[in-house]
Amino acid sequence: MSILIDNIGELVTNEPDQGEGLLGIRRDVAVVIEGDRIAWIGPSAQKPPADSRIDAHQRAVLPGFVDSHAHLVFAGDRAAEFGARMAGEPYTGGGIRTTMAATRAASDDELLGNASRLVDEARRQGTTTIEIKSGYGLNVADEARSLRVAGQLTTETTFLGAHVVPAGSEPDAYVDLVRGEMLDACAPYAKWIDVFCERGAFDGDQTRAILEAGAKKGLFLRVHANQLTEGPGVRLAVELDAASADHCTHLSDADIAALSGSNTVATLLPGAEFSTRSPYPDARRMIDAGVTVALATDCNPGSSYTSSMPFCIALAVRDMRMTPAEAVHAATAGGARALRRDDIGRLRPGARADLTVLDAPSHLHLAYRPGVPLISTVLHNGVPQ
Amino acid sequence: MSILIDNIGELVTNEPDQGEGLLGIRRDVAVVIEGDRIAWIGPSAQKPPADSRIDAHQRAVLPGFVDSHAHLVFAGDRAAEFGARMAGEPYTGGGIRTTMAATRAASDDELLGNASRLVDEARRQGTTTIEIKSGYGLNVADEARSLRVAGQLTTETTFLGAHVVPAGSEPDAYVDLVRGEMLDACAPYAKWIDVFCERGAFDGDQTRAILEAGAKKGLFLRVHANQLTEGPGVRLAVELDAASADHCTHLSDADIAALSGSNTVATLLPGAEFSTRSPYPDARRMIDAGVTVALATDCNPGSSYTSSMPFCIALAVRDMRMTPAEAVHAATAGGARALRRDDIGRLRPGARADLTVLDAPSHLHLAYRPGVPLISTVLHNGVPQ
Repeated sequence: MSILIDNIGELVTNEPDQGEGLLGIRRDVAVVIEGDRIAWIGPSAQKPPADSRIDAHQRAVLPGFVDSHAHLVFAGDRAAEFGARMAGEPYTGGGIRTTMAATRAASDDELLGNASRLVDEARRQGTTTIEIKSGYGLNVADEARSLRVAGQLTTETTFLGAHVVPAGSEPDAYVDLVRGEMLDACAPYAKWIDVFCERGAFDGDQTRAILEAGAKKGLFLRVHANQLTEGPGVRLAVELDAASADHCTHLSDADIAALSGSNTVATLLPGAEFSTRSPYPDARRMIDAGVTVALATDCNPGSSYTSSMPFCIALAVRDMRMTPAEAVHAATAGGARALRRDDIGRLRPGARADLTVLDAPSHLHLAYRPGVPLISTVLHNGVPQ
Repeated sequence: MSILIDNIGELVTNEPDQGEGLLGIRRDVAVVIEGDRIAWIGPSAQKPPADSRIDAHQRAVLPGFVDSHAHLVFAGDRAAEFGARMAGEPYTGGGIRTTMAATRAASDDELLGNASRLVDEARRQGTTTIEIKSGYGLNVADEARSLRVAGQLTTETTFLGAHVVPAGSEPDAYVDLVRGEMLDACAPYAKWIDVFCERGAFDGDQTRAILEAGAKKGLFLRVHANQLTEGPGVRLAVELDAASADHCTHLSDADIAALSGSNTVATLLPGAEFSTRSPYPDARRMIDAGVTVALATDCNPGSSYTSSMPFCIALAVRDMRMTPAEAVHAATAGGARALRRDDIGRLRPGARADLTVLDAPSHLHLAYRPGVPLISTVLHNGVPQ
């Protein structure tokens, strides 16, 4: 089963040696998909026959978005808490603990239903790969089942037992649980391990202990780092060769230097700053220092309840001073780097056939037309969604 | 033909004496539509029979958004100019003059097709009333045909010959043209007249002369006021009883005082500040002073190419410190006030049956879930879209 996509206005390949600029933009080309892979990209005049055809009507074709940071396994929402925060009113709800309680009380089917709806919602907005974390179970059984739910929806599953210390637990005992029994129960269902390294969550020593235990179990590393304050998270992520340090809102010069000489991606999550009225990370400073940057949604019910990568692109351009090309690159190839994947986030023969056709002639429109649903067609694994 | 909407999670009526808070929220109620009007709102237990039924599945039902400021009659786009601006690169394009040239060169069918696509796009995002301005023709024939096009799509048509002085024209001569021959040609197709009162566009005397000429022709008044600098626009709008002063980004204490004692609405357009990286208007100061505020998109190809009222609501909450309720009110009842309409922007018997069902349980989600398409169903004039 092959599909020909032609009449493309602009093809974003993310292969700079194949086209124009950072995005490797090509024009007057066609794409052939065979099965779940891209089989051929070449001049329109030479396009081969295929079983079916998608006419792009001179619109832009992009790699599907890679959302490398999302917390989708939960129950309940926290709209009232959000509304109170935005209105400057006191709110006595329990924050993340509210979500933990609702998650623990929910059935597997409810958790899967909720997460599945969010994955579908994200896909309609062009996301073809999404990482999903646990982190609202915060006990052995509920973390493990959160990961089993996540594994039904993505291969990029992340064990985040170290999200916060749950109320009633003693911190060091909880760290021992996370890197001991909980890790044993969760590792079979997880590809990644992640720790929220932050004042009030887990300190540098605790983070290191948990990540090292995870690595010994064969999990790959990522870190919630430097979101609310400067701290050891980013440098620890680099030292331990984590694929990504996520948030990176408060960075010292030493943090920037560490990232720029490393294979660790800085994953920026402007939806979190948007929904908490916090200052945005300084993407310009990172990019100018040679740091590889990814954009992701941080989709979660507390601090960033958006599933929209186009929205994050628009914010990155407006409020983090990324160029439109840098933002689109970060939302595709950047996310792939943050997941250490080279089969997604780019369009070239052999890559996974994950792509979107915009309802617009250029990738620029994702920032130029903020808030407007511009995703016309999504192909995931070569299958029109 | 009657329609019953029931199983509503939250009904935003904008009738504070009918329900909770500014939005007059009611629960456990049903709505009956007959023809293009709302016929009945009452307790679910008492709902009458109807010809058809919409099950809201416990989601929120709101008045359709009223977008009281949009420039939809144009040709071309300015994505490259936007991209250069966001990348900090020089751009030698002609700004609004680029759009003027493309608009003059386009056929009536092209102009109608472009505007119609944007109206449809806005409607899918919940907008049921949209004001449409001329302002890219800037000569007698092209302003008049812009308004004829607008009139095919909305009753809220606005003559904006005084958008800028076109290149090659002498300012005073152009003002005479606008309030003379151009007004004569345009008035039959317009409900409103508008002037861009700003340094580099039209000064206070010119604005007054044009607005007074329009009023004599039976047009109602609105003003682009105080967008880029403080100036006479807002006070002039109040003095002449304009329905709205639009933008209001740079206001003196005297401007605020004038607005707060008037029937002139301050229409805020955060999409423009978003897309030009400009400081946002201080909505909090206006609301606290008793000014009536509306939100609109300013949809246009140069400075705010969004058609999304939900996006403007999210920005208003995040960056203009409006509460979610204030933002939703401004995007519905506020827009209606800015168009001096009392048949839209609220849900009560006799009002026009313009409403949306969200894919969410509460109006809060419009700000809580930024960038996510949350409009599930739209009824316009009682007709599901």
